Amino acid sequence: MTVKNILFIMCDQLRWDYLSCYGHPHLHTPNIDALAAKGVRFDQAFVQSPVCGPSRMSTYTGRYVHAHGASWNFVPLKAGEMTVGDHLRPLGVKTALIGKTHMRADAAGMARLGIDPASQIGVRIAECGFDAFERDDGLHPWSGHDPDPAYNDWLREHGFAGENPWEEWANMAEDEAGNLLSGWFLKNSDRPARIPDEFSETPYLTGRAMDFIDQAIADPDGQPFIAHISYIKPHWPYIVPEPYASMYGPETVLPARRHAVERDDPHPVYAAMQEHRVSRSFAREEVRRAVIPAYMGLIKQIDDQMGRLFKHLEDRGIADQTMIIFTSDHGDYLGDHWMGEKELFHDAAVRVPLIIYDPDRRADASRGQACSELVQMIDLLPTFLDIYGGAEVPHILDGLSLRPLLFDQADRPERSYVVCEYDYSFQDARRTLNTPAREAWLRMIYDGRYKYILAEGYRPMLFDLQDDPDEYHDLGADPAHAEICTRMHEALFKWARQPRQRNTIPDATIESTAVQERIAESGILIGYWDAAELEQAMLDEWEPRFAASNPLTGRVMEKLLQQRKTKQKKEADR
Amino acid sequence: MTVKNILFIMCDQLRWDYLSCYGHPHLHTPNIDALAAKGVRFDQAFVQSPVCGPSRMSTYTGRYVHAHGASWNFVPLKAGEMTVGDHLRPLGVKTALIGKTHMRADAAGMARLGIDPASQIGVRIAECGFDAFERDDGLHPWSGHDPDPAYNDWLREHGFAGENPWEEWANMAEDEAGNLLSGWFLKNSDRPARIPDEFSETPYLTGRAMDFIDQAIADPDGQPFIAHISYIKPHWPYIVPEPYASMYGPETVLPARRHAVERDDPHPVYAAMQEHRVSRSFAREEVRRAVIPAYMGLIKQIDDQMGRLFKHLEDRGIADQTMIIFTSDHGDYLGDHWMGEKELFHDAAVRVPLIIYDPDRRADASRGQACSELVQMIDLLPTFLDIYGGAEVPHILDGLSLRPLLFDQADRPERSYVVCEYDYSFQDARRTLNTPAREAWLRMIYDGRYKYILAEGYRPMLFDLQDDPDEYHDLGADPAHAEICTRMHEALFKWARQPRQRNTIPDATIESTAVQERIAESGILIGYWDAAELEQAMLDEWEPRFAASNPLTGRVMEKLLQQRKTKQKKEADR
Repeated sequence: MTVKNILFIMCDQLRWDYLSCYGHPHLHTPNIDALAAKGVRFDQAFVQSPVCGPSRMSTYTGRYVHAHGASWNFVPLKAGEMTVGDHLRPLGVKTALIGKTHMRADAAGMARLGIDPASQIGVRIAECGFDAFERDDGLHPWSGHDPDPAYNDWLREHGFAGENPWEEWANMAEDEAGNLLSGWFLKNSDRPARIPDEFSETPYLTGRAMDFIDQAIADPDGQPFIAHISYIKPHWPYIVPEPYASMYGPETVLPARRHAVERDDPHPVYAAMQEHRVSRSFAREEVRRAVIPAYMGLIKQIDDQMGRLFKHLEDRGIADQTMIIFTSDHGDYLGDHWMGEKELFHDAAVRVPLIIYDPDRRADASRGQACSELVQMIDLLPTFLDIYGGAEVPHILDGLSLRPLLFDQADRPERSYVVCEYDYSFQDARRTLNTPAREAWLRMIYDGRYKYILAEGYRPMLFDLQDDPDEYHDLGADPAHAEICTRMHEALFKWARQPRQRNTIPDATIESTAVQERIAESGILIGYWDAAELEQAMLDEWEPRFAASNPLTGRVMEKLLQQRKTKQKKEADR
Repeated sequence: MTVKNILFIMCDQLRWDYLSCYGHPHLHTPNIDALAAKGVRFDQAFVQSPVCGPSRMSTYTGRYVHAHGASWNFVPLKAGEMTVGDHLRPLGVKTALIGKTHMRADAAGMARLGIDPASQIGVRIAECGFDAFERDDGLHPWSGHDPDPAYNDWLREHGFAGENPWEEWANMAEDEAGNLLSGWFLKNSDRPARIPDEFSETPYLTGRAMDFIDQAIADPDGQPFIAHISYIKPHWPYIVPEPYASMYGPETVLPARRHAVERDDPHPVYAAMQEHRVSRSFAREEVRRAVIPAYMGLIKQIDDQMGRLFKHLEDRGIADQTMIIFTSDHGDYLGDHWMGEKELFHDAAVRVPLIIYDPDRRADASRGQACSELVQMIDLLPTFLDIYGGAEVPHILDGLSLRPLLFDQADRPERSYVVCEYDYSFQDARRTLNTPAREAWLRMIYDGRYKYILAEGYRPMLFDLQDDPDEYHDLGADPAHAEICTRMHEALFKWARQPRQRNTIPDATIESTAVQERIAESGILIGYWDAAELEQAMLDEWEPRFAASNPLTGRVMEKLLQQRKTKQKKEADR
């Protein structure tokens, strides 16, 4: 079947290797594995930034962070940047959001452009181009939950009372004496959330996605849709209800992937990041043993909800016309490399699961395969355009359609590297190092073997993932690898200087137009000595399009057009 | 006097060296020279691109072409890019246009953003942020003059009849038999235009500028203004009325600055550009002898009009409160280096005159001086902001205020290079070389001695202006200069990777904020084991701002605030 709809499912902070189809030995995710069995599992999929906001802004704009500029969670995406909705709506595709985007609206830009934030366009700009069926960014702390999310209303309706039911039920456990224990504290991660499973966030959002699907297929307009089902989990707070809370014991916690050599004179930026509170916490085994079982439980819960969601597609009879994409916005160190959170470029942070099921018959050749080509989140939007028959727009989008990989085509474009960026100016590391905000940038280029990291103001880092798949040994200062550093450095320069802002005119238009001839046709004559020289040039070089009214060129244009007509007539008569 | 108003005067295609104050031996420009005598003459001023559109878009946005993307004349500037008006209007400054911008409106972008092109914001976006007192881009050929410019109406009112009076009067000569001769043909450049001087374009635009000034000072709102008086000349068509047409004989035409070595195996892009029609034309001496006297006449006419304009400021009593900037958008090869037009990076093309008269007393120290620091067109907008007391916005603007140079301050920021870019994808050279539109970029970095030019897909070019001030000897392939090439190449990379799109949040905001602490204050707690650890961290590290309502942090915040109050009271009592 051809693809009519797309479920674009994104988890938040799901590491590439915490699914059984990606090799986790203890965490069984049969529903996601089944999707991989009928689709393609990408084994080298990378995000454009290891933190929610910029990673998502790259995914939703199809552009590198360097191009769209929303380089951290608090940096609004510029009003005017084209997003997935701008590309897909003109093709007749509903572009809906159910869940998280981490979008921060560019209120100042909208005001400057006279865009009413309450207008349809204003609302879409604020929602990163989506029509929000439900927006929920998932963190609703006591002093910050404004506006009150719909999830809180729903909890209250179902008897979970309180000023902030998310905090009081979904994000709390109880001790044996009935004392409330906050999910914000890592120590409490090994306890079950007070909320029953069916009322917790992941099942709630799945239900909302099912509501959207039902509404969309009931709509008499029959429009195709892309539903961005964007889960908040397994992102912290790390707390999960039963039965998931008890599913994984400390014996299922894999040893941290870290090495003493990583603490022995590390790169200054890496050293500063190892000193972040969250890194120091996750360096402690008690933290890992409390948190990781909850993290696994949250993923297991997602897998169960995938089963529910996929069954819903079957029940509604649209499974064979619906592409399913399952991915994440970045990973989670979980103590690997002496780090917590995700703000550097080890695979734990920047490599994500990516599974695509394409019901198109041309994808039959690749079903169940693993694809080891280097792919990036910015490849998704070009894939959507490809599916819905939109023209390629390489003057705007930095990625490549994944469909040639899904169709296992021989003549597919070369993917020689991936690039990931991190603006650490909002992090304590910048303050520790006293780096100016303008310089606090890290950029990674990875060619499938070497991961080269340019740190503004410092020496580079380099990892050889062939000889050192665990990325323990930083070769950035190793003279024996200087040549490789130079090559990767130059590749990054080539990437950095690519024109990414000439967005208002397609490359194809430029390439197919004899611009200088068109300028002359319009009567703007550059470098002609006299009328005779002009006439000669016209006769020798011009392809006449019309009889110009310009007295300098009109007579010759007329003559050329007449000649062409005579020639065409002769050919037709022959 | 403090600066109240700014006349920002720009010529089109005026080479740096065609003014007597810049050393031209035959062309006397006493009015412009007088401006230089009371202001500062910048001897190393460079444009951001050697062609009208992108050069101007950089000037009006204060950003490199790489940042704003409008890389050639036909490429619309993205709706949303901030322009001079966006920066200055909030400071209470009228931002008016009288003349040319070469702006191409982003109609598609406006439609996408729901901006009515007829609204005030829409009109400003289409006029590059200016309020157009009069827009006139200056080329009104027979088949292209739509809409009919106001200048044509004015000509008709004054008896110059015709469908297109610009073509028929301003852009035509007559031969001895009364036959009309088009100004588009270079052969006719040595004849006077049919139009009398006072009705030709430069005096017309000067009159319009005077009208604007009179209106602005009569306006009871008393607002300061910046008037962008943007002349069309001495840009082609090269034709000028009497008395200017007869002022300069062929004996005043300087020999072409060109060398046989430049035709001996030139760089492939340079070679293709030498083959452009206009380059082949200007390689002919008869062309130079016909054109250059007219070019000089057009400049002499501008100088006379400057006298008229400056006198008007005196007459109106605002000369001592009005800054005057005199510059150009790029140069003109005029046959130098075997080139016509301006589309490469020799000084003839990219170096421009820049004279600034600042009435501020702090500028007294520099009056009449020449300044040899490297400055760029993108430095103008930061200068305007500086004058009107706007905050520095290095997260948007790529340039530096020129005021520290005008005030001859010792502690001024380092200016180590200038960068100029050229997108040749619209040129015949791209077609000749069969370069993809995405790759047809040239970038120049110049440090005051070495001019390094990176040509995508080809070897670089290098000129040593100390040893070879005429720029005849391309050292880009010379092994003896490999190290210099490497150094310049890396400087260009550093420039290319600068973040230029993080425009929605000021650097100073980032640098002055303890972001992670603010996040924690909002109730989002990352990496805390338990309440005791949180409390300890708060007591050790936090600067309390308010007593948070968050029950996890509120009690400690309250305690911290109380401690601070007690401490402050003690200090006050002491």
